[in-house]
Amino acid sequence: MSQPLVILGIAGSLRRQSLNLGLLQAAQELAPASVRIEIATLHDIPPYNADDDGKSHAGVDAFKQRILAADAVLFATPEYNHSIPGVLKNAIDHASRPSGANIWAGKPAAVMGASPGQFGTARSQYELRKVLAAVGMLVMSAPEVLVTLAQGKFDDQGKLTDEKTRAHVGKAVQALADWTLRLRAGA
Amino acid sequence: MSQPLVILGIAGSLRRQSLNLGLLQAAQELAPASVRIEIATLHDIPPYNADDDGKSHAGVDAFKQRILAADAVLFATPEYNHSIPGVLKNAIDHASRPSGANIWAGKPAAVMGASPGQFGTARSQYELRKVLAAVGMLVMSAPEVLVTLAQGKFDDQGKLTDEKTRAHVGKAVQALADWTLRLRAGA
Amino acid sequence: MSQPLVILGIAGSLRRQSLNLGLLQAAQELAPASVRIEIATLHDIPPYNADDDGKSHAGVDAFKQRILAADAVLFATPEYNHSIPGVLKNAIDHASRPSGANIWAGKPAAVMGASPGQFGTARSQYELRKVLAAVGMLVMSAPEVLVTLAQGKFDDQGKLTDEKTRAHVGKAVQALADWTLRLRAGA
Amino acid sequence: MSQPLVILGIAGSLRRQSLNLGLLQAAQELAPASVRIEIATLHDIPPYNADDDGKSHAGVDAFKQRILAADAVLFATPEYNHSIPGVLKNAIDHASRPSGANIWAGKPAAVMGASPGQFGTARSQYELRKVLAAVGMLVMSAPEVLVTLAQGKFDDQGKLTDEKTRAHVGKAVQALADWTLRLRAGA
Repeated sequence: MSQPLVILGIAGSLRRQSLNLGLLQAAQELAPASVRIEIATLHDIPPYNADDDGKSHAGVDAFKQRILAADAVLFATPEYNHSIPGVLKNAIDHASRPSGANIWAGKPAAVMGASPGQFGTARSQYELRKVLAAVGMLVMSAPEVLVTLAQGKFDDQGKLTDEKTRAHVGKAVQALADWTLRLRAGA
Repeated sequence: MSQPLVILGIAGSLRRQSLNLGLLQAAQELAPASVRIEIATLHDIPPYNADDDGKSHAGVDAFKQRILAADAVLFATPEYNHSIPGVLKNAIDHASRPSGANIWAGKPAAVMGASPGQFGTARSQYELRKVLAAVGMLVMSAPEVLVTLAQGKFDDQGKLTDEKTRAHVGKAVQALADWTLRLRAGA
Repeated sequence: MSQPLVILGIAGSLRRQSLNLGLLQAAQELAPASVRIEIATLHDIPPYNADDDGKSHAGVDAFKQRILAADAVLFATPEYNHSIPGVLKNAIDHASRPSGANIWAGKPAAVMGASPGQFGTARSQYELRKVLAAVGMLVMSAPEVLVTLAQGKFDDQGKLTDEKTRAHVGKAVQALADWTLRLRAGA
Repeated sequence: MSQPLVILGIAGSLRRQSLNLGLLQAAQELAPASVRIEIATLHDIPPYNADDDGKSHAGVDAFKQRILAADAVLFATPEYNHSIPGVLKNAIDHASRPSGANIWAGKPAAVMGASPGQFGTARSQYELRKVLAAVGMLVMSAPEVLVTLAQGKFDDQGKLTDEKTRAHVGKAVQALADWTLRLRAGA
């Protein structure tokens, strides 16, 4: 029997009841049996300072290990001020360094996002895709997952309850697994 | 013996001595024997008007046929006003329509660009990548090809003569061929 | 009595019943007495070819005259493939040329957009703002006008009927007039 | 005699010998007598967590006070992975919160950037401009300041020595002062 595919979900917000963390938890539940989704949060990633390149930091090292161990990465991003949260960009900056040891390069990736507003991360997801291409990730084009007016779609425990959205998230997880296997088979 | 891979090069400028057309001609010369690069220009693509969806237009139809027949697409784009030339975006809009008949979807792609200035299409290439992802193309992440101060790198006949740039273009063509075969093998 | 402020509205789509043309017509009706909104469409603007820089073209010349004569410009843009329509970018390219005769520079501007979908031009408006800054326009930051699910907000004649949207458009027109006068008074 | 105009320079990198800090120090030296440039770094800004909205944090509070006290803001940004450093975006996110107390809104701003590479922050500056518009800042369009191949333009003490670049920075500071006064006079 083959190993399950490991997808690392990264939530772009530090909030305890983050909608985007909830989106990853839904992805976890909805993943097919052949896929295991793990979740990383960004609480232990300090502000990146290039003067510290080469120094070890436990939180950053653990984060990098999880990325290295994963077959693919699934980002769930809020939108702050029409772009990616600073904390998410900071984590990407950290793990891309030092130069020559960019662990993102060549890894399959997909992007999702949820927001309370009606534009559902339409702007932040595209900036995130640009950044992921810049670090050499192989980003899946479609389907896109933009969850708008998200507060009505999650319950008080932060569980995604909207059936249509759940079905769409399930499809996206399957598509990321297919994308990952396709890139692996052809490599 | 297998068929050569067909890559359609699309030049984003209408100028006769376009630097970006010259870049595609260099790619053509530098392609390995297993790859044939054809070149399309955008002279026969009229301004897109959604009221004409469903009507046939000889120039647009011929352009679409060439895209459909290609295994991959290589865009060479100038930068006008920090973004993609209107004529290139217009051609992409045309070939993505009507809704449900978007012929770009699922096709491997890569982006290059040359400009007389020192920023070498750094801004237009990223807008182009966003648009290509939006129409569902599978865009190669790396290597990037940004030819700066391009006028000194081409001769009077529009031939790319700068050796370092030629080597880099050759590598990018090979990488696009590899990307295309990888996506095909895994499909 | 002072002259009315002249704002040139530019519709980014060629469709006869364009939602964005409708949005400009609403702006026209809702403008205060001190403001006159004129509307330009892009039907007479051919694909831009740098080889023709310096040649006269009646459609382009008339378009440029209208821009020069206006105190400010109000763009209403659809979103095609997550960005500005090619035809709109092409018109901006045309009027920015030849180099040294960029007639956009220093002119106050604002951006609106309507789309049938739920993201209401959230992506195209930001690319348009980037391009307008590149040509030196003085773009108003707020309020933003993004009309989503627009087909239910216009009647069969293309008239904007949704009251909340009408009020918001009226506010944006007033804000653009204020922005224009503020820039003029301080100049 | 009138008060000097106070411009707050914000450096987007935490490095001690940051090129962008050096760029702001050059701006400081080159400012006309009527302008005083102060410099803020981002070392005391923790990762933004919406769960802490409403709580006081000394570093963030001091940063906000400096912004409030300034007549305009001058950002100097590196480019990390084709976009704004996470630490800079994080500081903007912090100072824009809580909702309803966005202290950036209505403040004049300008953007500069320096990088060791040849693209000189061409990509990050445009993402930064988008974000600044999103928080309601009044961003100056021109002149742009993109310092490429910057390491050869600063000495070992981090002082900008390249004469052409110094002249350009001086012009940009003057233009930001003019822009600020123009917006004030017209308000």
